[in-house]
Amino acid sequence: MALDALQRQDFAACSAAELRGAIRAGRWRGTTHDTAPGYIQANLAIVPEAHALDFLRFCQRNPKPCPVLDVTDTGNPEARLAAPGSDLRTDLSRYRLYRDGRFVEELTDLRAHWRDDHVGFVMGCSLSFDAALEAEGIPARSFRRGDRIPAFTSAIACVPAGRFQGPMVVSLKPIPRRWVEAVREVTSRYPGAHGGPIHVGDPAAIGVDPTRAEWTTACEIAPDEVPMFWGCGVTPQAIALGAGIPEMITHSVGHMFMTDLRLEDLRRA
Amino acid sequence: MALDALQRQDFAACSAAELRGAIRAGRWRGTTHDTAPGYIQANLAIVPEAHALDFLRFCQRNPKPCPVLDVTDTGNPEARLAAPGSDLRTDLSRYRLYRDGRFVEELTDLRAHWRDDHVGFVMGCSLSFDAALEAEGIPARSFRRGDRIPAFTSAIACVPAGRFQGPMVVSLKPIPRRWVEAVREVTSRYPGAHGGPIHVGDPAAIGVDPTRAEWTTACEIAPDEVPMFWGCGVTPQAIALGAGIPEMITHSVGHMFMTDLRLEDLRRA
Repeated sequence: MALDALQRQDFAACSAAELRGAIRAGRWRGTTHDTAPGYIQANLAIVPEAHALDFLRFCQRNPKPCPVLDVTDTGNPEARLAAPGSDLRTDLSRYRLYRDGRFVEELTDLRAHWRDDHVGFVMGCSLSFDAALEAEGIPARSFRRGDRIPAFTSAIACVPAGRFQGPMVVSLKPIPRRWVEAVREVTSRYPGAHGGPIHVGDPAAIGVDPTRAEWTTACEIAPDEVPMFWGCGVTPQAIALGAGIPEMITHSVGHMFMTDLRLEDLRRA
Repeated sequence: MALDALQRQDFAACSAAELRGAIRAGRWRGTTHDTAPGYIQANLAIVPEAHALDFLRFCQRNPKPCPVLDVTDTGNPEARLAAPGSDLRTDLSRYRLYRDGRFVEELTDLRAHWRDDHVGFVMGCSLSFDAALEAEGIPARSFRRGDRIPAFTSAIACVPAGRFQGPMVVSLKPIPRRWVEAVREVTSRYPGAHGGPIHVGDPAAIGVDPTRAEWTTACEIAPDEVPMFWGCGVTPQAIALGAGIPEMITHSVGHMFMTDLRLEDLRRA
């Protein structure tokens, strides 16, 4: 089927496995938002095994920005726990390749780049929150400002691990005051998708100026809104880039890895 | 102060740091149960860095038996997150040294054995549950059968990681029928201490015969009691021994690592 023959709405009711299959077959190259509803979308980072222990220690020490859902066996591109039968080399619609801490190129297929010493890290992402919030009667879609969630480097230091150290990147959602406690409560139930907020209130208290675009877009906060911040999945990538490791491959922003995990799988019992 | 001058009750109201200090100074060599109330006691496993990534992957894939609370930097014996200022070489009252999957000797001090490539894993343990249950009005102490919690190798396979593979060891508590749901509910709140039960009911369904002592003691189940099973911290040790890695050092049963973490730190938000 021709690439342009498919539209986002064709994936509005599919499973994560079906979307991975479409991407693998070259039938979808778009972003993953508003596809395969109910499935957990995830951040991807692939690092050489020589750096994988420190990277995993970093994630273990910083679970809010780095909620690890799955770590592949070295050299094996299957995310067996999060998506049995998946192939991290072909199942994402767009990747970014970094070498020595510098961006090299975007890719749509990793088969020529995957190495025997590669280890893939699949980490939860807050893109799935909206469904959880809506299910609780919180009008999350009405809080959205465009497609890209504002993200900023904060003054909050991550707990270091080896060469991996630096500030936490946080995502920002302005939430109407009357919904703040409900949003805090619901998101806290999903530690595998960044969990509860890392900060609520004055952005300057964590060194953030929302009026200046940084990772994605700037963000205006209305008088009746409270800025709420969560640990952001960009953090491990930013930290790994800062560490200048020889190679890292990640998903491109918005082109997430679709896992077979459901929101309820990540919910605290 | 002479070793025999101190009794367990002298530690019945101390902090975890105070107990670690007493052990480090050689003033306490006993087990840790009923000491430093409210602090999380933990399992310890020290493995060479060459096996640490696989071991950490194993724990990540099997969080019920292996709830990782802290992983040290390679060669650094301080558990910085779980107990700042601690020293894993001196702060436990008794250790066990294994080489090539075989027990070598018990030790009371690791300073002569600690190596630059050692990585320490601190993993939650269910010894702290009783306090949580009592706080909820569940008479947990009355459920106890002696000092040693019955533990058995089950037929439940762990998710493998490299050489680390094999069955899950489970702990067993017989719980009066009317308390079963409450115990399930309360323990589920503490994933860092093995979380909720892995099985409730017929032991044979998971390949366990409680009438035969295996890791600790046998266990009789009264007609009004239901056997409840949890993932057990012996699992990672059993698995690592089975893998025959060149060296592993663990705590001795009952001689846990005392962390500064409080029960409420492990509680789901």
